[in-house]
Amino acid sequence: MSIQVVSKSRRLRSTIYSSRIEKQGVKSYTIYNHMLLPASFGDTLEDSYNHLKEYVQVWDVAAERQIEIKGKDAYQLVQLMTCRDLSKAKAGKCYYSPIIDENGGMINDPVILKFDDERWWISIADSDLMLFAKGLAIGKTLNVSISEPNVNIMAVQGPKAFNLLEKIFGNEILDLKFYNFKYFNFKNSKHLIARSGWSKQGGVEIYVEDTKSGLELYDLLFEEGKEFNVKPGCPHLIERIEGALLSYGNDMDINDNPLECGLDKFVNLDNDLNFLGKDKLIKIKETGIEKKIMGVKINLDKINLRSTIDLKIDGKIIGEVRSAVYSPTFKKVIGIAMINKPYFLSNHKFDIVVNDKECTGEICNIPFI
Amino acid sequence: MSIQVVSKSRRLRSTIYSSRIEKQGVKSYTIYNHMLLPASFGDTLEDSYNHLKEYVQVWDVAAERQIEIKGKDAYQLVQLMTCRDLSKAKAGKCYYSPIIDENGGMINDPVILKFDDERWWISIADSDLMLFAKGLAIGKTLNVSISEPNVNIMAVQGPKAFNLLEKIFGNEILDLKFYNFKYFNFKNSKHLIARSGWSKQGGVEIYVEDTKSGLELYDLLFEEGKEFNVKPGCPHLIERIEGALLSYGNDMDINDNPLECGLDKFVNLDNDLNFLGKDKLIKIKETGIEKKIMGVKINLDKINLRSTIDLKIDGKIIGEVRSAVYSPTFKKVIGIAMINKPYFLSNHKFDIVVNDKECTGEICNIPFI
Repeated sequence: MSIQVVSKSRRLRSTIYSSRIEKQGVKSYTIYNHMLLPASFGDTLEDSYNHLKEYVQVWDVAAERQIEIKGKDAYQLVQLMTCRDLSKAKAGKCYYSPIIDENGGMINDPVILKFDDERWWISIADSDLMLFAKGLAIGKTLNVSISEPNVNIMAVQGPKAFNLLEKIFGNEILDLKFYNFKYFNFKNSKHLIARSGWSKQGGVEIYVEDTKSGLELYDLLFEEGKEFNVKPGCPHLIERIEGALLSYGNDMDINDNPLECGLDKFVNLDNDLNFLGKDKLIKIKETGIEKKIMGVKINLDKINLRSTIDLKIDGKIIGEVRSAVYSPTFKKVIGIAMINKPYFLSNHKFDIVVNDKECTGEICNIPFI
Repeated sequence: MSIQVVSKSRRLRSTIYSSRIEKQGVKSYTIYNHMLLPASFGDTLEDSYNHLKEYVQVWDVAAERQIEIKGKDAYQLVQLMTCRDLSKAKAGKCYYSPIIDENGGMINDPVILKFDDERWWISIADSDLMLFAKGLAIGKTLNVSISEPNVNIMAVQGPKAFNLLEKIFGNEILDLKFYNFKYFNFKNSKHLIARSGWSKQGGVEIYVEDTKSGLELYDLLFEEGKEFNVKPGCPHLIERIEGALLSYGNDMDINDNPLECGLDKFVNLDNDLNFLGKDKLIKIKETGIEKKIMGVKINLDKINLRSTIDLKIDGKIIGEVRSAVYSPTFKKVIGIAMINKPYFLSNHKFDIVVNDKECTGEICNIPFI
């Protein structure tokens, strides 16, 4: 495998935590929303996986940028972009929402935070959703202002997350419900904290607006977290694939619609909501999808996937794997794949060639765990 | 300086040339339009600079993605997004064009290729311009289709570029004028070739649509180029700063307008064109800009800039440097900076702290060479 260094420049934005995680030994980066996102810290993938499932980690996920939509028509614009029904959305809650274009193609899959009808944050995956929102708002002359505020998220994830958080924020934080958010005091500042995060191990995301205070909090989390064996970390490939947390740009893109992505419960077609691509999705639902995201298990003990690989049955392409990793739980490679009709309907076996080596696998449901 | 490896995945798209340049020893990558863009090949920066200025290089710049705008309203949409007058644009020509939002803020600075009134390619810098175009087209119900075709550009740059190109395409290619494009035959295929590129050393960009043929051409360029000392390369930090080729995301972003970026000759306010931000730019032109992109020379023999650094006079911030590199030509560090009014009006000296070391520099005009 060929290895290259990240060539840094202002265009690949550093986060407010970058100098800290570099001192803490970050070994690789990915780029997400034009920003550095840590990808590993020197432990083996399996060691950091075990750590995340047993202790607590603090993640620099500032690359999850916020798009703020403010103004009289803010709800109208937000609803226009998503097939999820936000008409009854409540202030202080988070909503995972597919963002789709006029054809139903996935443009992003953010978590949307509602402050009130006239103020929303869209916590985006890796595409410039601000430009889409701006284009729509200009084109439809909506009364909104759209910006990317200086918010830098750190995530606290793992089974010991709330033990650590309680030490700092008191037991009030234990009452925070899943996908709810609230401001919590920290010294002379306050921080928006949401019970969310890109793992299935529990924890929160802290939306840092006050940089100075946020960095003090970052340092304190490591100080107070020693007794819980805290470590720096990042979204984890094994853990997220086992839990089937889809990754925009990896598992799905503009050529896929939310029904193909298995996001049916976030697709509301049965009411009078006005959103882009609705007619297309209604038609697709009637005629049925032509492909679907599924799990795959591959009889291999390692893989390093950087682009899709075709899956074949009797020489015929029946789909492609888009993300994959060796899973210590299943003792084989598991992955997220887009599978053609009708092969996604049952657990077919398939052939795949990885690094010129022929091997076999089978389709399965997700999440794996 | 802390060094990290690029964590590859499908989301950071490989190009059709990636496996080739990795065999050829690419050492670092940047990410551009969600795609791998080579940043160095193991030579020192000065060696590759000297090579580029003397011989010929082939660059994998597939990350310069194309946004195709097709349909009856294609011209209307393209013109809506740029302050450059394209009303008299000619088929077969390329137009460097600032793309701006409703406030005049820079969203991208692509080269736009006109096929005819109803078909354009926008060869984009690093932002998802397709999403902006889509939002506008939907909002204004324009009759266009917008897509990212599978086009992978390779650039042939350097003073020996046309010697090499003539061997392959015949002397017809010598007649191609600057910023013009035309299809040229290659074996049983044809390739769009534009006389353009992100260096000032001359050469072309080959817009490869036929992947198989493009890869044959890539290999042949290295075979036939041996006599001209051909090497793989990439946009070069020293060469591009000396020539003041601005880099979107590094030197400018949505908070800067094209007048501040010194792009006045691409801002047409004196006619009845309909484009976004026009009113704002007219006002700004009347009242005068508050900051401007300028060159800086800094009395240092090296720098590694990954974010802006403030420039001060008597302790007061008067601007910030956004890109910088040691220039073997000037025997000091040179850079691109955004300088506040009135300091951009003359060659002020300033103080700057680089790696905790205080030093001095002065403002100057660009391009440096």
